[in-house]
Amino acid sequence: MQKKISNRISELGEFGLISRIAAGVAPAEGVITGIGDDAAVTALTAGMQLLTSTDMLLEEVHFRRTWHDPFRLGRKSLAVSISDIAAMGGIPRWALLSLALPADLPLDYLDSFTHGFLAMAAEHGVALIGGDTCASRSGLIISVTIMAEQFPERIIRRSTARPGDDIWVTGTLGDAALGLSLLEKKLPIPPGEGRGEGAFDSLVNRLLDPTPRTAAGITLAESGLISGMIDISDGLLADFGHIAEMSGVGGRLELDALPVSAAFRSLAGSLADFPQHCLLSGGEDYELAFTAPEANREKIAVLMKNSGIPVTPVGIVTSSPDVTVVLSDGSCWQPQPPGFNHFT
Amino acid sequence: MQKKISNRISELGEFGLISRIAAGVAPAEGVITGIGDDAAVTALTAGMQLLTSTDMLLEEVHFRRTWHDPFRLGRKSLAVSISDIAAMGGIPRWALLSLALPADLPLDYLDSFTHGFLAMAAEHGVALIGGDTCASRSGLIISVTIMAEQFPERIIRRSTARPGDDIWVTGTLGDAALGLSLLEKKLPIPPGEGRGEGAFDSLVNRLLDPTPRTAAGITLAESGLISGMIDISDGLLADFGHIAEMSGVGGRLELDALPVSAAFRSLAGSLADFPQHCLLSGGEDYELAFTAPEANREKIAVLMKNSGIPVTPVGIVTSSPDVTVVLSDGSCWQPQPPGFNHFT
Repeated sequence: MQKKISNRISELGEFGLISRIAAGVAPAEGVITGIGDDAAVTALTAGMQLLTSTDMLLEEVHFRRTWHDPFRLGRKSLAVSISDIAAMGGIPRWALLSLALPADLPLDYLDSFTHGFLAMAAEHGVALIGGDTCASRSGLIISVTIMAEQFPERIIRRSTARPGDDIWVTGTLGDAALGLSLLEKKLPIPPGEGRGEGAFDSLVNRLLDPTPRTAAGITLAESGLISGMIDISDGLLADFGHIAEMSGVGGRLELDALPVSAAFRSLAGSLADFPQHCLLSGGEDYELAFTAPEANREKIAVLMKNSGIPVTPVGIVTSSPDVTVVLSDGSCWQPQPPGFNHFT
Repeated sequence: MQKKISNRISELGEFGLISRIAAGVAPAEGVITGIGDDAAVTALTAGMQLLTSTDMLLEEVHFRRTWHDPFRLGRKSLAVSISDIAAMGGIPRWALLSLALPADLPLDYLDSFTHGFLAMAAEHGVALIGGDTCASRSGLIISVTIMAEQFPERIIRRSTARPGDDIWVTGTLGDAALGLSLLEKKLPIPPGEGRGEGAFDSLVNRLLDPTPRTAAGITLAESGLISGMIDISDGLLADFGHIAEMSGVGGRLELDALPVSAAFRSLAGSLADFPQHCLLSGGEDYELAFTAPEANREKIAVLMKNSGIPVTPVGIVTSSPDVTVVLSDGSCWQPQPPGFNHFT
C-alpha cells in the first residue's frame, strides 16, 4: 500500500507543517533551544545589546502571488527585516516566522517559500528559531521578527546626524520602483529576457528579491566614521526625512549625484513618466542612507572600496530643518513633507 | 476654526498611528532605544539568556469582534504570548506589536485595543518597544512577539519530564472552553450578569481575558523543584502530550483530580454535553502543566500555597509512551493521539 502523499496545507495539520519547515533548519551558534518548545532560547555574545525588528507582509497589500514566485517571496520576507538591522549596524542572528496560510495552498508553494526564506537566512548568518502557523481565510499573511546583536558603542541611530555632515547612499536608487512600473504596465518581456541578466530582469529582480546591505551596515558601524543611518524602504526623500526629523536637522540632496544602475539608465527614459520620482521617492531599494562628517569622506571612500561596497555622497546635512533637492539646472526644489501613507 | 478630528484609521496615516500607540508607552528598564528607529535596542541582564515567542491572531479565526471587546482583545493578544514565556519560567521584558488594520476601523477601537495591550504589559513588566502597522483588506490581524530572559539553569523545557514524576496543573481547567460554549449557544445572559461577577461572566472572561501564569512560572522555575513545563493552550491532553512526546514518556491522568472552578461546577452539567471534554481538551485556559519528582510534592505544595498560587497534582508520568485517563469508575480510557488541527 502506498503512503498517502499530502498535496495541500489542510492535509498536513499544524504539527506536520511545523516539522516540514523545521526540517530545513540546521543547528546554529547561540541557539540553545530552537523550534519546538514554548519559546526559543538563545545566548547573546557577552557585552552586546539586542536589536529587534518586525515586519508584516500581506498578500495584495505588500505582494501579489501572480508577480512574486514563492522562492523569491520567501527571500524577501526575511530580507526586509534584515535591512532594518543593517541600518543600525547590527549583526543579524535569529528569526521568528509566522505564517497564516490559505488551506488550499499547494505544499510545493510552501516548500519553495521556505527554501527561499532559509536561503536568505543562510546568506546573512540568520537561524530560524521559531514562529507560529495558522489557517488564513484571506490570502497569505507573513510576519517576521529578526533578532540581532552589536556592541552598544557601534549601534548607529537615526537621531545623530549633524549639520555639515555628508549624506551618502549605498548602491543605486530607483531600480525597484522602475521594476514595479515594468510589472504594473504589463509590458511584454523583451526577447532574451525573463530568465536572463538583461535590464528588464535586473530591475524586476531588485523589486522581487532585494539584497539587504548587512556587510555595509556592519562595516560602517564598526568603522566609527559615520553619524547616522537608515535603510531606504520608502524612498530617499522620505527615509532621509526620518533622519532629519529625529536629528533635528535638514538636508540638501543633489539630484545629479544620485547613483543609478545601467539598467535604470537604459530603461528609465522610455518607461517612467518621471524617472526623478523613482530616484527620490521610489520605495523598496533597501539600500542604506547614512551621514558622516566631511572630514571622514576620503576614509569612507577607501574603506568601502576595499570592502567592495559602492557608496556615493549625494548631499549635505543642514541646520535648517527643510529637506531640499538641487535640480540639474541648479535650482532648488522643496518637496512636500515626505512619507508614504500605507492607509490610503 | 476648529481642528479637524480624525475618527478613522485611514485619516491618521502610518506615522500618526505609530505616534498614537507610542504615546501610551513609558520608559522601561533595559530599553535603550524603543519605538521609532529601524530596530529596537535592549540590554539583557548579565548572565541571562533570551527567550522569544510569537503569536498571530486573525479575526474570524482566533477571535470575533462581535464577541471580543477591543480592550480585552488587546489584553489577550499579549497574554497568549506571555503565557509561552511563563511555561519556560522566563521573566517577560519586551514586546513587538504588528497590526494590520481595516481602513474603516474606528479610532476609539484602536485606542481601546492599545489600552488593553499596555495594561496587560504593565501587569507583567513588559515594555512595548516596536512593531509594524499596515492596512488590511480582510479584517484585523495581530502579530505579537515577546522577549524574556532567565538564567540558563532555571529555564524549564518540555523535554525533561521523567517517569515517576507527578503531573501538576495550576488553577482550574475547562473554564475557557465552557465560556466558548456559552457564547456559541448564544444563551441569554442570566439576570444580574453580563457586568458582574457571576458564573456566566467568570467563564466568558476566562476565554476573553485570560491571565498568564507569569508569577507561577518564575516561582516554579526558580525553585529547582520541577522537571518539565508547558502552558495549556490546546487542552491538557494535547499539551501534556507534547511534554510526553518530547520527553519520551507517557502519563496517567486522574479525571476526578482535575481542578474545576465553582462557576464550572455550577454550569457544566446543564450547558456542556460532555463536561469532561472541556476539562481534558478544552483550549485557551492558559494554565501551566508541569512535572516534578514525587519527592518534591510537599515542598511544591507549601511553596505555591505561600505564593498564593493554586496547584493540583493530577497524575503521574509513565515510562510507557501512552497518555491514558483514569475515569471515575476506575477504568482507563486511552484517547486518540491528541492535537488540535488549526487547518481543519
